Amino acid sequence: MAERELSEDDARARAEALISSADVVCVATNGSHGHPNIRPMAPVRTEGTSAVWFITHIESSKIIELIKDRSATICGVSSDSGEIVRLWCTVDILDDRDSRAHIWSDELTGFFPGGQNDPNMRVLKFSVVSGSYERGEEYGAFSN
Amino acid sequence: MAERELSEDDARARAEALISSADVVCVATNGSHGHPNIRPMAPVRTEGTSAVWFITHIESSKIIELIKDRSATICGVSSDSGEIVRLWCTVDILDDRDSRAHIWSDELTGFFPGGQNDPNMRVLKFSVVSGSYERGEEYGAFSN
Repeated sequence: MAERELSEDDARARAEALISSADVVCVATNGSHGHPNIRPMAPVRTEGTSAVWFITHIESSKIIELIKDRSATICGVSSDSGEIVRLWCTVDILDDRDSRAHIWSDELTGFFPGGQNDPNMRVLKFSVVSGSYERGEEYGAFSN
Repeated sequence: MAERELSEDDARARAEALISSADVVCVATNGSHGHPNIRPMAPVRTEGTSAVWFITHIESSKIIELIKDRSATICGVSSDSGEIVRLWCTVDILDDRDSRAHIWSDELTGFFPGGQNDPNMRVLKFSVVSGSYERGEEYGAFSN
């Protein structure tokens, strides 16, 4: 396939714009029984292309998968523009006060009525190892 | 999390309706370097919850990943209804005349100008091993 290669800076800038505006992304984990697993998830905070934060219920099956294997991949798609960003990440499952405060906003009370210290909530920090951006024949990669 | 469990038949029927109408799904593979990989892909044919078919360029990196490991997972999401279907699959990479004819439609000529016998095209048959359907607190699983 003919590809037009983007510079690392250009790919990173475009990826950052797309991931910052994404309401929902798909997240793949190394699941059980040899199959990857995949879920739509809503980021609660993004920090450029260095980190993407989510929250989850402590009883979610993704907690078990991420304890077994911290490697996970994010895919964000704009159906309007056809842009695709992929971020290969290492995940931390966090429970400390600072991490909870870092991502909390009052609109999350609908999911965790106990607020930012709700004992059923865990914070997931996806630290980006490398990424790619593509739109049609344009493609570029970057690494952190 | 409180869940309302669906029967296997109900979960299968709802999953079938959703996957049959999906223009684009996310597909996760066991990628290189220990990370799962993930891509938006457009099904070219679905057969209930037994098989989902795609086509790909022979030079796509997904070919290499699927030769190494045939396990892959499909996630379809309706942003309107909030429904989520997941299908855990085993993938065959096909190149025979019958498979090409099985999935071909003339609108695919835009991707493969050589038509259904285009040497750059491969047919991917995702045979569904098991699946799940969820919407809000409703959840159900099924296996083939």
